[in-house]
Amino acid sequence: MPQYTPPIRDTRFVLDKVIGLDRYANLPGFQNATPDTVEAVLEQGGQFVAEVLFPLNQVGDQQGCTRHADGSVTTPDGFKEAYAQFVEAGWGTLSTPEEFGGQAMPHIISTAFQEYMISANMAFAMYFGLTHGAISSLLVKGSREQQAMYIPKMASGEWGGTMNLTEPQCGTDLGLIRTRAEPNADGSYSITGTKIFISSGDHDLTSNIIHLVLAKTPGAPESSKGISLFVVPKVIVNDDGSLGERNAVSCGSIEHKMGIHGNSTCVMNYDGAKGWLVGEEMKGLAAMFIMMNAARLGVGLQGLGVGETAYQNAVQYAGDRRQGRALTGPQEPGEKADTLFVHPDVRRMLMEAKAQTEGLRALCLWAALQVDLEHAAATEEERQLAADLIGLLTPVIKGVGTDIGYKVATDSQQVYGGHGYIAEWGMEQYVRDARIAMIYEGTNGVQAMDLVGRKLALNGGRAVQAFFKLVSEDIAAAKGDEQLNGFAESLEKGLGHLQGATMWLAANGFKNPNHVGAGAYPYMQLTGTVALGMMWLRMAKAAAEGLAAGAADAKFLEAKLVTARFYFERFLPDAGGLRRKIESGSDAVMALDPEMFRAA
Amino acid sequence: MPQYTPPIRDTRFVLDKVIGLDRYANLPGFQNATPDTVEAVLEQGGQFVAEVLFPLNQVGDQQGCTRHADGSVTTPDGFKEAYAQFVEAGWGTLSTPEEFGGQAMPHIISTAFQEYMISANMAFAMYFGLTHGAISSLLVKGSREQQAMYIPKMASGEWGGTMNLTEPQCGTDLGLIRTRAEPNADGSYSITGTKIFISSGDHDLTSNIIHLVLAKTPGAPESSKGISLFVVPKVIVNDDGSLGERNAVSCGSIEHKMGIHGNSTCVMNYDGAKGWLVGEEMKGLAAMFIMMNAARLGVGLQGLGVGETAYQNAVQYAGDRRQGRALTGPQEPGEKADTLFVHPDVRRMLMEAKAQTEGLRALCLWAALQVDLEHAAATEEERQLAADLIGLLTPVIKGVGTDIGYKVATDSQQVYGGHGYIAEWGMEQYVRDARIAMIYEGTNGVQAMDLVGRKLALNGGRAVQAFFKLVSEDIAAAKGDEQLNGFAESLEKGLGHLQGATMWLAANGFKNPNHVGAGAYPYMQLTGTVALGMMWLRMAKAAAEGLAAGAADAKFLEAKLVTARFYFERFLPDAGGLRRKIESGSDAVMALDPEMFRAA
Repeated sequence: MPQYTPPIRDTRFVLDKVIGLDRYANLPGFQNATPDTVEAVLEQGGQFVAEVLFPLNQVGDQQGCTRHADGSVTTPDGFKEAYAQFVEAGWGTLSTPEEFGGQAMPHIISTAFQEYMISANMAFAMYFGLTHGAISSLLVKGSREQQAMYIPKMASGEWGGTMNLTEPQCGTDLGLIRTRAEPNADGSYSITGTKIFISSGDHDLTSNIIHLVLAKTPGAPESSKGISLFVVPKVIVNDDGSLGERNAVSCGSIEHKMGIHGNSTCVMNYDGAKGWLVGEEMKGLAAMFIMMNAARLGVGLQGLGVGETAYQNAVQYAGDRRQGRALTGPQEPGEKADTLFVHPDVRRMLMEAKAQTEGLRALCLWAALQVDLEHAAATEEERQLAADLIGLLTPVIKGVGTDIGYKVATDSQQVYGGHGYIAEWGMEQYVRDARIAMIYEGTNGVQAMDLVGRKLALNGGRAVQAFFKLVSEDIAAAKGDEQLNGFAESLEKGLGHLQGATMWLAANGFKNPNHVGAGAYPYMQLTGTVALGMMWLRMAKAAAEGLAAGAADAKFLEAKLVTARFYFERFLPDAGGLRRKIESGSDAVMALDPEMFRAA
Repeated sequence: MPQYTPPIRDTRFVLDKVIGLDRYANLPGFQNATPDTVEAVLEQGGQFVAEVLFPLNQVGDQQGCTRHADGSVTTPDGFKEAYAQFVEAGWGTLSTPEEFGGQAMPHIISTAFQEYMISANMAFAMYFGLTHGAISSLLVKGSREQQAMYIPKMASGEWGGTMNLTEPQCGTDLGLIRTRAEPNADGSYSITGTKIFISSGDHDLTSNIIHLVLAKTPGAPESSKGISLFVVPKVIVNDDGSLGERNAVSCGSIEHKMGIHGNSTCVMNYDGAKGWLVGEEMKGLAAMFIMMNAARLGVGLQGLGVGETAYQNAVQYAGDRRQGRALTGPQEPGEKADTLFVHPDVRRMLMEAKAQTEGLRALCLWAALQVDLEHAAATEEERQLAADLIGLLTPVIKGVGTDIGYKVATDSQQVYGGHGYIAEWGMEQYVRDARIAMIYEGTNGVQAMDLVGRKLALNGGRAVQAFFKLVSEDIAAAKGDEQLNGFAESLEKGLGHLQGATMWLAANGFKNPNHVGAGAYPYMQLTGTVALGMMWLRMAKAAAEGLAAGAADAKFLEAKLVTARFYFERFLPDAGGLRRKIESGSDAVMALDPEMFRAA
């Protein structure tokens, strides 16, 4: 009963009018992203996910994955066939380098496609999403031999990939890892230990799964500095690339969880499994962080993807469902009731969802461009700026983006009234699926600490100053424009609060680091509010220019201007309150002894 | 694995020190609420729910209810036995009038017990919760014969009760009801139609279920003015009170829903079922609203109850789980890691949960007192004031209270990290259960419209002015006190924003009612922020007095003062932003044509 249409028009608006892909046409990779190719990727990719993956979304939720007595794992009905189509069509190779059989398109294009795939079926998208993350680690830290052995088949989707970090006693604090890696005579290692919450840990979609596993070598220190990264294939790969022996790694059980039932979340047992070091010994955390940063952007995109589908359905329902009358009098007197669209509070929810998902889409695509520029920009200065910006905003996209996904899914469910709570309507699944994105790849609280505790101070605050400069320049440019001036002033106030809060943290955090921790979450929210504000100002500018030039899609562009106005009227007012929360410090937060939290 | 301890100490603090039950000892009913009786109710009632109902909470979620081929419905394992114990102990009769076999305690006492029952097992508590709502309608609108026939056995819990409003085409807009009531020669009616989302619609806990059903008599107008209320017993009751024939009402199916699986949410088919008019023909909506107002307070209490249990477990986990180190250096160097309590952002979530649940508890109990005063206060002036206040704040307690429940459940789940997403830990159930409370008994958007569109303007704004006066007096009284002055000033600012927003709505809503609708939700949130602020100022005052008097529970009272500070530092700053959102009006909210919501 739910539906999904890829928002191609909006993606194109961001790529063509807001970001202006053509400005980057001379950069490596971008020559592969001609307007025609981009159009083809979005149209055909969108069609594939809407027709093949979306119909499996509810059945995946209902059936979940099954672990059989022999330890094998099967995915829900239809997943295997759909995955084969995914591989066949080459959708996994969009941004893979040509030397590994990929299409070498910019990251920004694969990101646009990835959003659609998540929207259609988040649990399904995770199978390749994890593979993609594993590839990114191997690309940077793997040896030439490892890259040649694993990447081509992973990129095509023929083999899967996973990240193995978490253990029962050890989540965020990776120093507590107990999995051991004993060196073998042949240069390989024997990996022994238990990993939990392993997304796509085992399944029937691929002939092999390449696990990247954090473990400790003998004598390694008991901290995160003692961690090494290993590649541990489910089936050992012979030197000629053929599949050899089954490795001693298996799925011990599948977790019963709130959502993303279509993805197999496994407890993985390593019983002396054969693995090979990736990069240097005891430098595993750095290698894993390459993967994690890519994954965090992907998780932010999950917030967008699930939110978008939920929003689309809420819009549909608001037009279908008739209940009550407009406050200003019946709008359709011939009908027994008006549609939900006449009710301002229903519209409030839809406009909030629209303003947040469209803003987040622009931010995610802009961030993906920074990833491209970090590698491909013409000058070192530009590369550094892009690296600074993406480093700063990765935790914001993950943290704020997934909070938005959950809020939008919840509000879209709310539009359905009682029907939203009933499984068959499909809305409650979006809420349950969206929920995990706030938790994994580092909880959103961990993202906030990454932003405030690490990224802010890095290189003397270079990244945050660059971000402020960027927003300020946008504001200054928009101020002379009659249509944009009000938006620019609103954003200027928000930026002022963010700058004030930044100064407060800089001045007080050194004295008491708990002030930094206590303000981290509202600071992340405030940064997100300003970052989305920057994107809305840019979108408003592009829309106004399009309208002035007599563009054909006037209604679409007018809606952009209205939504920009809504964003500045309804989200920017939070900025002052968020700043005051940050500047209230940590005294009340830290004052209670643990037992004083109990009121019972 | 989850746990629950009734927060008796906090309930007593509110009853004894904040509200001061002894001040009302001379009112009818309150003589039954001696300190010893209250203590016994809370202790024994708390013990009953913790030991009997709470252990059934997870199993109820896992098993759900079952409809059998013969149309009968069974509840999860253990529910029937536990319900029998509930009836046996008389927990349902706390506030029932003595003439119907009840204990005639004030509503405030049964409310305190009800919170515990919800905390222990929300789905279970709903069986009697619905009965309780049905009783409240019969008490006011039922004939003497109907009262005598139904209320005693409903109050004891021997029979159940339900509310039948919703139909497939008709939720909030009750004018669309299609269920028909044809008069019979004997004065009864034949009821025919389909009702959906009927909580506790059929089950195996009671020997009879008394359905209250909205239906239309022949020739009734096609609006909510044409609705009548009928009592339709599952089994017809003979004149001597014995059970007679099975009535033509049955459960057609059980809904598969996101949560509260332990409660049977039924599609109910009425096939010429025998029913009797309650109150006057075509005055059914007024009769139903008596029930609905009681139910809305009960649903607000669900937000509190589920939030409390989730919070308690998050506190437990934060003390058990070791992960990472304090920002200020290791707190327990002998351990491999510190507990989660050292992390400011974990504390932020716990403090927010503590501030909101304790504030909401105080507000719910204070509201229950207003229900008592509405009926029992010594003077007409006091009765009217109480009626005004409870009328005004019922939608706020329902809307804001259930938003709080969902937020607290979500944040408490977040404290668990990945484990929070796994079913066996129990936290995700609280989120799923809490979610429905924002939807049923009128969505929270409907509550906001009830507040802003109806309650604000009633009697020339008498209720809201009375509320402002109450808060202002508290502020004025606290300003001279050194410990309370800061809190009072913070609340004063918040009240100023609420008053400003009220004036803006009064000035602009008449010109354009959509301004009222577009501002309704932030106005409800702002009212809730101020109302909880009023309760926190009162709690801080009581705590400060207790500490000054050398009270024994100093740690508990100190925690109250710290939490009050946290509330004023972390929630009141939202007030200014909420006001600005309201005063931004409805232009951007209402501007888009429905098709312009689509970006695809």
